[in-house]
Formats: sequence, C-alpha cells, structure tokens
Amino acid sequence: MSLPPVRRQTDPLHWEGVDVRVYKEEGEAPFRAVTRQVLFSDAALRCELRYFEVAPGGHTTLERHEHAHAVVIQRGAGRCLVGEAVFDVTPFDLVHIPAMTWHQFRATPDQPLGFLCMVNAERDRPQLPDAGELERLCASPVVAAFLGRTRT
Amino acid sequence: MSLPPVRRQTDPLHWEGVDVRVYKEEGEAPFRAVTRQVLFSDAALRCELRYFEVAPGGHTTLERHEHAHAVVIQRGAGRCLVGEAVFDVTPFDLVHIPAMTWHQFRATPDQPLGFLCMVNAERDRPQLPDAGELERLCASPVVAAFLGRTRT
Repeated sequence: MSLPPVRRQTDPLHWEGVDVRVYKEEGEAPFRAVTRQVLFSDAALRCELRYFEVAPGGHTTLERHEHAHAVVIQRGAGRCLVGEAVFDVTPFDLVHIPAMTWHQFRATPDQPLGFLCMVNAERDRPQLPDAGELERLCASPVVAAFLGRTRT
Repeated sequence: MSLPPVRRQTDPLHWEGVDVRVYKEEGEAPFRAVTRQVLFSDAALRCELRYFEVAPGGHTTLERHEHAHAVVIQRGAGRCLVGEAVFDVTPFDLVHIPAMTWHQFRATPDQPLGFLCMVNAERDRPQLPDAGELERLCASPVVAAFLGRTRT
C-alpha cells in the first residue's frame, strides 16, 4: 500500500483517501453502530493503525485474542471493559488490552467514542464468549451492568 | 513492560505514569525544544507508539532511516518536510514517512506541534545529512526556506 505523505483531516476524524468502513462483516460478531477506518497499513510497518468510532449508545464486540491492542482515545466519551474491570475514558486516555483479555468499548448514550487502535499486522482471529464464559463474566455486578445484563 | 489497563491524560498530552523525556541524547543530533513520551512499548506489539511535542519555534532532527513512520498530529500547528516536499499540518492530519526519506517536523513560532508516531520496535539508526546532501536538499528553494537556510 503506497501512501501519500500527508492525508488531511476533512471532517472531524475523517480523512482524505480513507474509506469509512463497517466495523466487521454483518453477522460475524455482535456489535452496534461502529465504523472502522484503516489509517496506516504499510508492509514496512509491523503494526497497523486504525480509527474506530462508536456512535452514541453503540458498542464494539466483546471479544479476546492472542494479539494485544494499544488504544488512544481521540473523541467523545465512553467506557471500556478490560478483563473484569470497567473504566471511564475520555480523549487522549491510553488503554492497553493484553493478550487473551476480554474487552469491549461502549460510547455514552449522548456522545460518540472515537479511538486510535494499534495492532500487529499479523494477528489471530478474535474469540467470542460462549454462554458459560458470559455467565462467568457477569458474576461481577460491575461487568454485568456494563454489558447491560442482569445476572441470572 | 507491564502496562496498566488505562492511563489517563492528566495535563494536555501528559499521562499518568508516562515520563516526559528529552527527545534525543544531547549532542547526538541537532534538534530544538522537543520532548518524547513512550506511550506503548510492549513486547507483544511489534511497533511502539510515542508522543512527540515540539515547542513553538522548535524542530525535530532532519534525518532518514530504513524504518518507516506513521504519524497522527494531535496538537498545535506546524509544517513537515517529507522527501523534498513541505506540508502544513494541523491536528489529526496523517503523515507517512517512507523508508530512507528525509524528514523533519517544525512547530510554528507561536504554537507547539504534538504528534503520535508509530514505528517498528526493531529499527535501524537514523542517518544525518552530510554537507553535500544538505546542499543537494537546499537546491530546492522551498526546502531551503523550510530548513531556515539560504542557498549558498
């Protein structure tokens, strides 16, 4: 992928020559109202840098994988689950998702949540929680509330 | 390096647990008024993410190397040289520095220039221009003006 030296921001968090894509293929995994923009995917770099934006009330997929994420919040407000802890996040906060750690980002009801995410170019496929794993996660009232689930 | 899940921004573009360092060792290469903060340096990630801030009127080193850079402007205003072209940059613009391409970032006289820079964890040492190379670069009036040099 040959990149121009400079790609300007046009609208907020939209750029010249960068497509706004659906976060994942429909039906692949549960999510709500998330877009994905691949900012840097260069064979010379061993990571990619992507910008995700979760619309108000939306959320990314609850998932885990062997690869790690390095996140820098850029816009709006929300919360994230990392393992079994929930954190409020606002612009420029840094979030580290280690290997095989359940994680999800949620925008607040009235603001989007936009963030940069650095990830290895070569990476494994995300895993989704099965019913037992979800039950185990929701044993924590904080996690259950974050996921919008009452413990059964 | 074990990272906490969330490190919050404290002051603008300063973070909990992230040291503000001198850009390079003194005397190693010419630069002016630049700080460096390593945001993510994790063995599980094959790139690092750093935040550089150039104070008003300052500049990074004019250099080139085999490794590439992926830059996202975060704060202030400035200009950058990529190869033999000069670009104005403002927040959220994307800058790609390919292999072996001369580059430098300069803040405006009255504003800082802060940017994220993604780079391979394993990388070669930067090269500085010798007198002949600098002369060749400054054959372009635009580059000579950017570097603050009159063509001799």
